[in-house]
Amino acid sequence: MANKPLLYIVKLGGGLMDQPDALEAFLSLFATLRQQQHSTHPIYTLLVHGGGKLATELASQLGIDQQLREGRRITDAETLKVVTMVYAGYVNKTIVASLQAKGCNALGVCGVDGNLITAQKRPASPIDYGFVGDPTSINTTLLNSLFKQAITPVIAPITHNKLGQLLNTNADTIAQTLAVALSSHYSVELIYTFEKNGVLSDTNNPESVISSIDRTTYQTLKEKQIIHSGMLPKLDNAFAALEAGVTTVRIGKAEALLSLVKGQAGTTLTHA
Amino acid sequence: MANKPLLYIVKLGGGLMDQPDALEAFLSLFATLRQQQHSTHPIYTLLVHGGGKLATELASQLGIDQQLREGRRITDAETLKVVTMVYAGYVNKTIVASLQAKGCNALGVCGVDGNLITAQKRPASPIDYGFVGDPTSINTTLLNSLFKQAITPVIAPITHNKLGQLLNTNADTIAQTLAVALSSHYSVELIYTFEKNGVLSDTNNPESVISSIDRTTYQTLKEKQIIHSGMLPKLDNAFAALEAGVTTVRIGKAEALLSLVKGQAGTTLTHA
Repeated sequence: MANKPLLYIVKLGGGLMDQPDALEAFLSLFATLRQQQHSTHPIYTLLVHGGGKLATELASQLGIDQQLREGRRITDAETLKVVTMVYAGYVNKTIVASLQAKGCNALGVCGVDGNLITAQKRPASPIDYGFVGDPTSINTTLLNSLFKQAITPVIAPITHNKLGQLLNTNADTIAQTLAVALSSHYSVELIYTFEKNGVLSDTNNPESVISSIDRTTYQTLKEKQIIHSGMLPKLDNAFAALEAGVTTVRIGKAEALLSLVKGQAGTTLTHA
Repeated sequence: MANKPLLYIVKLGGGLMDQPDALEAFLSLFATLRQQQHSTHPIYTLLVHGGGKLATELASQLGIDQQLREGRRITDAETLKVVTMVYAGYVNKTIVASLQAKGCNALGVCGVDGNLITAQKRPASPIDYGFVGDPTSINTTLLNSLFKQAITPVIAPITHNKLGQLLNTNADTIAQTLAVALSSHYSVELIYTFEKNGVLSDTNNPESVISSIDRTTYQTLKEKQIIHSGMLPKLDNAFAALEAGVTTVRIGKAEALLSLVKGQAGTTLTHA
């Protein structure tokens, strides 16, 4: 474990996309991540992003009805076109241009590029989410080659089924799947950023961050319904990632990225 | 020269973007290009595309006024957003998904990715084209690394100034600049596809293809005004590419790609 190179996989929460200044501030922090540790070993970084409200706004401007079911977007053909434009086009290239200006050699791709992430279209029953896919494989060879060139992949949450069909895919799931796939070669720190300071014990108190949660305390927090519904899939995924070999999972505010990676802010999820 | 590996750089004409069936047919041909020659040497391929009318249509749907001056789009901030979405997002990923389904390991990027193509914003005088850039450098190291992995880069015509600004760039110019930059390591065949069968001696007769043009005959054709204004910059660029080390330049119909690369269709431009 100690001999594996360190890889930070950061999921950028959608909320920051609508705040150009906050996004810039986050990217400045992210660009310095590779210099964070006093180490002779290289540190690798990878960023996964969504598109937040921008896709919804564009769809609305184009008169495309947006349907959400259980918090997930129904992706019809027109919506797929919109999310491909916004996620893989505008948002991805805007982030990459900013990172390039900050000295971080970023390269933006989505799951179709170099066959990076294949996915299976979600079955139409019980709910037909449309062109939505769940990841089935990761091309780690391509990512290894990019890391060796000191390139930071910036990944938009669009995948494909290898038969020519693009698929909209949950960005949290992509981050988790990448983290697990890369954990055999890297010590992976998976960092989910979102609008809150971390997992809160009191949703009305933004300072009530639970600094550390393990499997046992997670069960207790769920039973006491301290952890609410929106957070459950995120934490379920996080613990699944830990089980599958990811070294650390942290959850917190994008603006606190550097404290977050050191475990000085946000919530750290641990084994046992 | 003979020892350099063969690289086909194909510029896909914008017109095909609006015709899904024709685009599919072209991509099927393009995907087989690497198997075209009886050779033990690998053949590399690279595709450059624009976005044609799709960007104009989206801008129109969004109520963004499009201004053209001397055939070139004025790229204001809103238009830049649109072309980034359409070129680097929708068109790029649609092409890559299709090529992946056809067994061609394509990877879609634009000039900002991996610092692939830097550009300088065009001076605002005499005409202010807005966020339009002319290429200043190519990261051939990144392209070499992709070729070695048997990856076919698919390149959208968006570049950057290394200071965080995306720039809209002419796709023909990108194809030419890539061809010249890569000609020191590859025997580059640069193929411009467009809606016509080739350079025509009679614009009213689609069959009047001039099969071969050299510098001398080009001068004559210009003086006799047989080659019309829209074709001049294309051919000027093509001859400049030949002067700068590109092995062959061919111009013809996308649908005839395989005949085109063999010199059995379209127009071949030659030295001397």
